[in-house]
Amino acid sequence: MKRVPRYVWIPVILALIAVPAGFWYVDWSRGGAGAGLYSRAWMPEAVFAYWDPADFYAAPESLGGSFQGEQCVQCHQAVTPGIVNDWRASRHSQPKGRAPVYCSDCHGSDHQSLHLPTPEVCGGCHATQHVQFEDEKRLGFPSHALALERALDAPHFVDKPKAEVSACLQCHSVAAKCDSCHTRHRFNAAEARRPEACITCHSGPPHPDDETFYASAHGRLYLAEGDEWDWSKPLVRGNYKAPTCAYCHMQAGRHQVADKPIHKFGIRQVNPLTSANAVKRRQWVELCSDCHEAGQASAWLAALDAERKQAWQMLRGAEAVLKDLRAEGLLYPNAGERPPYPNSTLDRLLPKARIGFYEGQASAFYNVSPIERDYFEMWYFDNLAAYKGAAHGDAAMVKRGHAALEKDLQAIRAEAQRLRELGPVRPDPRPLWFSGEYTEHNLENN
Amino acid sequence: MKRVPRYVWIPVILALIAVPAGFWYVDWSRGGAGAGLYSRAWMPEAVFAYWDPADFYAAPESLGGSFQGEQCVQCHQAVTPGIVNDWRASRHSQPKGRAPVYCSDCHGSDHQSLHLPTPEVCGGCHATQHVQFEDEKRLGFPSHALALERALDAPHFVDKPKAEVSACLQCHSVAAKCDSCHTRHRFNAAEARRPEACITCHSGPPHPDDETFYASAHGRLYLAEGDEWDWSKPLVRGNYKAPTCAYCHMQAGRHQVADKPIHKFGIRQVNPLTSANAVKRRQWVELCSDCHEAGQASAWLAALDAERKQAWQMLRGAEAVLKDLRAEGLLYPNAGERPPYPNSTLDRLLPKARIGFYEGQASAFYNVSPIERDYFEMWYFDNLAAYKGAAHGDAAMVKRGHAALEKDLQAIRAEAQRLRELGPVRPDPRPLWFSGEYTEHNLENN
Amino acid sequence: MKRVPRYVWIPVILALIAVPAGFWYVDWSRGGAGAGLYSRAWMPEAVFAYWDPADFYAAPESLGGSFQGEQCVQCHQAVTPGIVNDWRASRHSQPKGRAPVYCSDCHGSDHQSLHLPTPEVCGGCHATQHVQFEDEKRLGFPSHALALERALDAPHFVDKPKAEVSACLQCHSVAAKCDSCHTRHRFNAAEARRPEACITCHSGPPHPDDETFYASAHGRLYLAEGDEWDWSKPLVRGNYKAPTCAYCHMQAGRHQVADKPIHKFGIRQVNPLTSANAVKRRQWVELCSDCHEAGQASAWLAALDAERKQAWQMLRGAEAVLKDLRAEGLLYPNAGERPPYPNSTLDRLLPKARIGFYEGQASAFYNVSPIERDYFEMWYFDNLAAYKGAAHGDAAMVKRGHAALEKDLQAIRAEAQRLRELGPVRPDPRPLWFSGEYTEHNLENN
Repeated sequence: MKRVPRYVWIPVILALIAVPAGFWYVDWSRGGAGAGLYSRAWMPEAVFAYWDPADFYAAPESLGGSFQGEQCVQCHQAVTPGIVNDWRASRHSQPKGRAPVYCSDCHGSDHQSLHLPTPEVCGGCHATQHVQFEDEKRLGFPSHALALERALDAPHFVDKPKAEVSACLQCHSVAAKCDSCHTRHRFNAAEARRPEACITCHSGPPHPDDETFYASAHGRLYLAEGDEWDWSKPLVRGNYKAPTCAYCHMQAGRHQVADKPIHKFGIRQVNPLTSANAVKRRQWVELCSDCHEAGQASAWLAALDAERKQAWQMLRGAEAVLKDLRAEGLLYPNAGERPPYPNSTLDRLLPKARIGFYEGQASAFYNVSPIERDYFEMWYFDNLAAYKGAAHGDAAMVKRGHAALEKDLQAIRAEAQRLRELGPVRPDPRPLWFSGEYTEHNLENN
Repeated sequence: MKRVPRYVWIPVILALIAVPAGFWYVDWSRGGAGAGLYSRAWMPEAVFAYWDPADFYAAPESLGGSFQGEQCVQCHQAVTPGIVNDWRASRHSQPKGRAPVYCSDCHGSDHQSLHLPTPEVCGGCHATQHVQFEDEKRLGFPSHALALERALDAPHFVDKPKAEVSACLQCHSVAAKCDSCHTRHRFNAAEARRPEACITCHSGPPHPDDETFYASAHGRLYLAEGDEWDWSKPLVRGNYKAPTCAYCHMQAGRHQVADKPIHKFGIRQVNPLTSANAVKRRQWVELCSDCHEAGQASAWLAALDAERKQAWQMLRGAEAVLKDLRAEGLLYPNAGERPPYPNSTLDRLLPKARIGFYEGQASAFYNVSPIERDYFEMWYFDNLAAYKGAAHGDAAMVKRGHAALEKDLQAIRAEAQRLRELGPVRPDPRPLWFSGEYTEHNLENN
Repeated sequence: MKRVPRYVWIPVILALIAVPAGFWYVDWSRGGAGAGLYSRAWMPEAVFAYWDPADFYAAPESLGGSFQGEQCVQCHQAVTPGIVNDWRASRHSQPKGRAPVYCSDCHGSDHQSLHLPTPEVCGGCHATQHVQFEDEKRLGFPSHALALERALDAPHFVDKPKAEVSACLQCHSVAAKCDSCHTRHRFNAAEARRPEACITCHSGPPHPDDETFYASAHGRLYLAEGDEWDWSKPLVRGNYKAPTCAYCHMQAGRHQVADKPIHKFGIRQVNPLTSANAVKRRQWVELCSDCHEAGQASAWLAALDAERKQAWQMLRGAEAVLKDLRAEGLLYPNAGERPPYPNSTLDRLLPKARIGFYEGQASAFYNVSPIERDYFEMWYFDNLAAYKGAAHGDAAMVKRGHAALEKDLQAIRAEAQRLRELGPVRPDPRPLWFSGEYTEHNLENN
């Protein structure tokens, strides 16, 4: 038998070492006291215990003993009457044809090792909803089911001061607990059908779903008359005078939100005319036809396509300006001059400028040159405001968003010209993120 | 008989030719596939069919045949139950002492040539409201009845990318259809009396009527308690704890909004003490006296006058800076250097800088030098925010608006100084609207 | 007996002259036609009569005669039916076990010398609430009870154009009249328990309590379901599904708001770990425990401390930049070059730069160099937005606020560098507040 040649066995053996080593490294990275890819580089704040209970919650040692449902209720009626009242008003306390679902069924009975229910706990009874919710994962991010994981795996999530990251986690915890939408302890479907269930998180830049829905004709109807609608009815044709978030995005109560939008989150340019999008378009037209003429729905979607095209024309204009500057070496600080992300070995070895979705997404929040930050804001704030305005029917926001995009593009061009005039002459780097309290704070405190 | 002298007959004959030619030209301009003065220069987007149905709507060819009221309802109960439910709950379905108003009465019976009802169709029964609404036309613009016409006749409406214009038309279509305020198919007066009927459009810069009303003491009362008020009552003294948009601006339900404001829309400086305004002032004081002391109403109006005077002092300060720059030839690009509006022959022959209300109104949205745009935003956004704040009783918005005006004025002065220091040295025009995607897009796509 | 030495009797006699002279001067200053320390330097606008009735209201001479309760009601039922309806629905019209409280009981009987009720008038019956309200005074400002006095005593309040000051007084009048929260003439506690009673004033920069509460999970619950809650119940444990402004800040209806916040208004850095703050912290944790686990409340407060620390790290970074510039003489206009406040003799004698809370608070609204104004906005607007967001649970506002703070800091550093590059070369002072309409307007019109 002939000897296996060197150019075969060396790569094979290297691969046999490298692949398990890679898995082992990722596994090891995730095995620290924190959570996610950088679990060894940071410790959670105390409040994280309530946003990511599966990873961090530890029951208080207030009271020993094991208690059954009725006992929990009796005692907590006095201690925390509000949440007991909510439970009493819920279906959990008096379900049709079965025994009540008591505190202990979700939190456990041993008072010194109580837990906060994760989606898996709720999924024990509500299997359909849980499966639908988890199914979002195959669509990647943005999606609810991956909101926490992908956030914790991003280097800037770990690098930024916790004061800011805590704000992020407050919403990204939607993946880890059902009471982001179904507030405890009533867990009423009627409540979760209302837009307020969604907009606790879906508000403000970069996703003013709140503002844009409320400013639309649909939203105005909800604001004026929504209190009189019968929210116990399912989200189907004929039950509501106007649609709300869930009516369109969780049709008939399906717990899967991320698969229908054609332009996804608006953060990258998509071709709205692919065959996959043709299917989504039909789904939308059919949905709108619950109340509107199909022609109007199609025309509206076409107008949205046009809005996106126009927005991207400006965004790509700005991207081109930045890429030219990078090619000319005029970004300051350029990739090599910036302080590397403390946790990113790769960034240290291969620093690169971060421009736009594919290059810069997560990282452009800070630690970049001013003109990169300007583009980031154009792309992530003004662009998404315009998109949400167009998608939800808030005409004023479309106008405002596009006016902002036009102004951003003009400002980026003017700044590029100024940088060209300045040429390779470099200002003292101190005023930037290169050093100073902020960066030092990051390096020391995470 | 003496010969008519040359200086008489030549002008007369020229006039006899020019006047009909002018009329013919305007008529011809309006005769294209679009609408308005520039109807030959653009085509509507599909969605325009629903915002300007009289001009653009074409019924879908879905189903042939002629149907009478009961038949429409029977079939649509299954197809679009929501709107049929609305109709059943409306007075149209069970008017006092007459036959129901069916689908076919407003949309026609031939299913392949259905139409969307225009104000004229509604006016067939609701003559008083229709006449009042149309009466706004004699007051010029801004007014609801001229909202669509004046928008379509503005060159920037045609020049700008459709993605943005579509946003404008969404509200300006108020002139073309009654369901902007009376949402279909319930058409309930109770609904139209609530502020939500108005603020679908009256929100955001340049007219934050939404924000400023909701932030006022009146608005807070509405937000807290409005759901308990009996909206079936007419908008007159004693029926409501606090006034809303319609209570003040459509007193007793009069469908004419534009004639009472003293400072009009806040976009130009008015003398609040003319005899015409004295009449309006009396009307306001009388209206406020439904609840307040007349003295308080007068004092409030005087405070509004003072606010306007102060705002205009700053606005005129900024206008003066711009006019000086123009005189010194320091605006860049100046009127002659800008790309002319594609549709404006006049602008090509006689380019002029556009500064403030009388010169620039419609055109300063884009295609101007940065400092002109800054003034435009000062005048159209910050000024109007301050005005609406003062008029509607949103103290925070007055403060914010005036702080913004002060800052704008300071920035405009600083920029003017910078331009003077730069002198006639001209930067490369590329970074501006002079060329580039945006202008090319405009030239190619409308 | 030995002679008292000169170094004793001269200071003593000077003190005996100066102290009474000082009191007399302050007294004399307050004795003018206006109100506050600068009462001789300004006249109120007419509308002030309704915001500070104790100082400025004069009854209209509309109708002579003295009227008793029933008569007031009879006549006003026709003249102003709305407010009579409100009174009829109030407890004043049918109190348990005592005679009704009529119009004349609060406004007086002589129709030509009616008055608007001050807190003292209401306190005649509602003594507990009045005493609690007045008790805020010992906590200094910010507090409701001192809101009017401290505003009128600030020089910029008198110097600024009245159009802007009127906006301030609209809310600061809360010290002078109870109907800021309990709207006339129903004066329903149920109404005052709702957030709308507070946010008429607590909205917009620098105190977006409105936005941040409504954007929180608590606020979303209120928005969705608050209309169904029984607002006649007291603000205690178990009565409400979610807390509102008053539930937390006026626990059990106590009319004293200012004493519990640990970080006060967020305008200066406090040590959150003092013993006084440990007491407040316990009070908060106990309050939150009405619904939440104590551990979650503590963790939340710790996260707020961290947010404040991070914000102040950036704020102090910016303050340091400004103080360096001042030391280097690079602020322009510097303190000596600015127009002095018209009413401030001291500022004329000892001009000083105003940087941050202790030096600049009230005065940095205007009349400062651009970079001082930038810091003012960073400190007063962006910082407070972040704080309110963190305190009220509006995650998006925390993110937005901190992003703004980071950007502000970066911009201030870049501007400082530009000023250093410019060096002592001074631009023509005209573009600043040094002269021009605004300053002249101030000098002439107040």
